[in-house]
Amino acid sequence: MTTMRITTRYPHPHTNERNSKTHLRHLGHRHLLLAVTALLLLQLLQLLHLLQPCAPTQSNHATALKQTLQIHVNVTKNTHIKQRRPNTTRGLRRPPRSMLKLPKGTRDFGPQDMALTMALIDKVKTAFKIHGAVEICTPVFETTDALKNKYGEESKLIFNLQDEGGEALSLRYDLTVPLARYMGSHNLDKIKRFQIGKVYRRDQPTLNKGRFREFYQCDFDICGSNLAKMAPDAEVIKAMEDALESLKLDYTISVNHRGLLSALANISGIPSSLFVSVCASIDKLDKKDPEFVIQEIVQKGVSLSSAMDFVSRVTLQIDKGVSGVSGMLDRILEQNQKLSQIPKAIQALEDLRLLTQYLQQMDGLGRVRLDLSLARGLDYYTGVIFEAKLNHKVGVGDGVGVG
Amino acid sequence: MTTMRITTRYPHPHTNERNSKTHLRHLGHRHLLLAVTALLLLQLLQLLHLLQPCAPTQSNHATALKQTLQIHVNVTKNTHIKQRRPNTTRGLRRPPRSMLKLPKGTRDFGPQDMALTMALIDKVKTAFKIHGAVEICTPVFETTDALKNKYGEESKLIFNLQDEGGEALSLRYDLTVPLARYMGSHNLDKIKRFQIGKVYRRDQPTLNKGRFREFYQCDFDICGSNLAKMAPDAEVIKAMEDALESLKLDYTISVNHRGLLSALANISGIPSSLFVSVCASIDKLDKKDPEFVIQEIVQKGVSLSSAMDFVSRVTLQIDKGVSGVSGMLDRILEQNQKLSQIPKAIQALEDLRLLTQYLQQMDGLGRVRLDLSLARGLDYYTGVIFEAKLNHKVGVGDGVGVG
Repeated sequence: MTTMRITTRYPHPHTNERNSKTHLRHLGHRHLLLAVTALLLLQLLQLLHLLQPCAPTQSNHATALKQTLQIHVNVTKNTHIKQRRPNTTRGLRRPPRSMLKLPKGTRDFGPQDMALTMALIDKVKTAFKIHGAVEICTPVFETTDALKNKYGEESKLIFNLQDEGGEALSLRYDLTVPLARYMGSHNLDKIKRFQIGKVYRRDQPTLNKGRFREFYQCDFDICGSNLAKMAPDAEVIKAMEDALESLKLDYTISVNHRGLLSALANISGIPSSLFVSVCASIDKLDKKDPEFVIQEIVQKGVSLSSAMDFVSRVTLQIDKGVSGVSGMLDRILEQNQKLSQIPKAIQALEDLRLLTQYLQQMDGLGRVRLDLSLARGLDYYTGVIFEAKLNHKVGVGDGVGVG
Repeated sequence: MTTMRITTRYPHPHTNERNSKTHLRHLGHRHLLLAVTALLLLQLLQLLHLLQPCAPTQSNHATALKQTLQIHVNVTKNTHIKQRRPNTTRGLRRPPRSMLKLPKGTRDFGPQDMALTMALIDKVKTAFKIHGAVEICTPVFETTDALKNKYGEESKLIFNLQDEGGEALSLRYDLTVPLARYMGSHNLDKIKRFQIGKVYRRDQPTLNKGRFREFYQCDFDICGSNLAKMAPDAEVIKAMEDALESLKLDYTISVNHRGLLSALANISGIPSSLFVSVCASIDKLDKKDPEFVIQEIVQKGVSLSSAMDFVSRVTLQIDKGVSGVSGMLDRILEQNQKLSQIPKAIQALEDLRLLTQYLQQMDGLGRVRLDLSLARGLDYYTGVIFEAKLNHKVGVGDGVGVG
C-alpha cells in the first residue's frame, strides 16, 4: 500500500504567526471525540443490567473488565446515603441558599451517577486501548494564547480566569487544542492517544436539551506525518464503533468530506471566504428548519439564491434505492455533475471511496451512511468528518461521537 | 457501645449567616485527604514492578485489580510516542513559543505518568471501597460564595473566574468544602464518600519543593450525626493506612488533637482569639526553624514569652523511653501538669485514648505516633488531626495523607 502525506486537519497553533512552517504544519491526524454528556448518562441508566457480574471467560481483558464493573455496582448497592426529607414551609420546599447553589450549567455526580460514569469510561478506555492508544492528561486550564483563534465564532464561550497580573489563563474548551499544545510542548511529531476529561463552555445551558457548561469528552486521536491515506480515518471510526458497541448502543454514523462540501459551495456560488462560517450554519440543519439556516447564511453575506441552492444540494436524498456507500457516491456525482470538473471534489470522492474500502475490510461499514448536510461547527475540521447519533432519541442535541 | 454526638469539625457553610442552626450544624465527620502530588508520582516510578502481571488468586477483588493494572502496563509498553530530536540552534535548544507554554505550576501527564497515576488511583479507590465508601464527583468550579471564609489566610490563593456578569465562580481549592456544599445542595445528613480529583491553588510553585497549582487530592470522609465517638476517626486513619499499604509505602502517621493544642496555648498565655491563626504558624514547624515560627507568632500579636513557651511545649520530646501511644499520653500530662485542670484537655486526652483503643483493635496502631507540633494549616480542622509522612524523603513538602 502506498504511503503518502495526508492533508493536515490539525488545529494549527501558529496560524497567526508569520513563521508558520513549524513541525506541526506537516502533521496529519485523525480525530474522534466521544461526548459522554451528562443527560445521556442518565438516559443510559437502563444499561445498568450490563454491569451485573458475569461468569469468568477465557479472555483476560473481558474478565478484568467485568470484575471491575462488578465492584463498582457493589459500591452502588452498598450506598450509605440517606435522603433527608425536604424541609417544607407551608407545603413548599424551602429554596436553597445562595451558598448551597450549584454553578449554572453544572451538576454533581452522585454515587449512582459516578458508578455508571466510571463503568462507561472503563469500557470506552478498553476500546481505545485495544486500538493501541496511550492515555494522557493535560491541565484543566491553558494559557489564553494557546486557545486564541482556534474555535471561530464559538471563542466567545471560553471561560477565562480572573487576571491576577500573571499570564492570562482559560479553561479548556475541548481536548483537541490542548493536544496540539501538548505535542508542541513536548516536541512530538506523532502520537496515538486518548484523553478523557471534562471541558468547559460558557453556553446558555438550556438543560432540557442536555447542554451543560461542564461535560465529559472522550477523545481518541491519531497524529503523525507519513500516515497511510485514509487508514487513520478508518481506524478512528472503527474505534468509535467499538466503543459504542461495548456500550450496547444503537447508533448510525454519518460521514461527509469538507472538500466535497467546499466544492458544492463553489457550485452554489458561495464565496470561499465565507465557507467556514457557512459550515457552522449548515451544521444546524439537524436541529433547525432549512428556512432558519438559509436566513442565517444570508445574514453572513451570501445571496439568497446561493444559500437556497447550497442548502438544497446538501439536503438532497442520496440513499434512496441505492445500496451501500459506493452507490451513494455515484448518486452524488449524478446529482451534481459539475463536481467532476473540480479537482478537490474528485479528491474528496476518492478519499471517501478509499475510506469505505478500509471500513469494509475492518467489518466497520454496517452503520455508516453518507450525509452531505453534516458539516461540524468548529473551524478546525477539514477532510473527512463524521458523527455518530443514537437511533433512539434520548434528548441529547449533539452526536455521541464526532470527528 | 454507647453512641453519642461527636464534636463537629465540618467546614460550616453558614458561619456568616444569622440563622446558623441548619442541618449541617449537627454533622459529625471525619476526614482524610490523600495528596497524591505529582512529584511523589514521579518518585514512585520504582513501584512499577508492582504492576507486573500476577498469577490469579482466589480473591475476586485482587484478581480484578491485578488484571486491570496489567492492561495499563501493556498500554505503557505499547506506547506509540516517538521523541523528536530537539530543534537546536547553535547547540542550544530553541525556547518554546509562548503558545506552547504550559501554565505556570501545572504539568502534563504523559502516557507513562498516566498509566502510573491510574494504577495508583485504582489502588486507593479499592482501599476506600473496601471501607464501604461511595464515589462522588463535584464540578471543578463552585460559586465564590460557597468557598468564601473557609480557608483563613489561604483564601488569597483561590483562582477566581473572570466576571462575565453572571454569578461569581472560583476553581475548587480542595474537595472538602465542595463536599459540604454537596451535602447541603442534596439535603443529605450522612455520607461515607470518596472523591478523587484535581484541586487548584494560586501558590508560588517552587517546583523543586513539589508544589503545583493543579494537583490531585484523594479524599475519604465519613459524615453524619450520631456516629460512635472516635470510631469514624479510627476508620479514616485505617483507610489511609490501607491505601498507603496497598501502594507499598513506608510511612509514619502523626496524630494530635486540636483541643489539646488549644489547652496548651491557654497554658502558654496565647489569647483564644489568635489560636487558629497561631496554628497555621505551628504547622510550619516541620519545614522552618523554631525561631522563624516564634517570630511569625509574635507578628500575629502574641507576646514573645508566650510564643516561646508554646513552641517549646509542642516540640518537647514525648516518645523517649516510652512504649506506645498510651505511654506518650501519660508523658504529656507529666510535662504539662496544668492540663489536668482544663476540661477540654481532659476530653482531648480521653479522645486520643479511645482512638488508640479502636486502632489497636483494627491492627492499625503500628505506624501511629503522637506529635504535639502537628497543627494543620487550614481553619476548618478541629478535634483529632493526623498526617502521614513517608519515612524516605522524596522531595515533597506536605504529608501524603492528612485529616
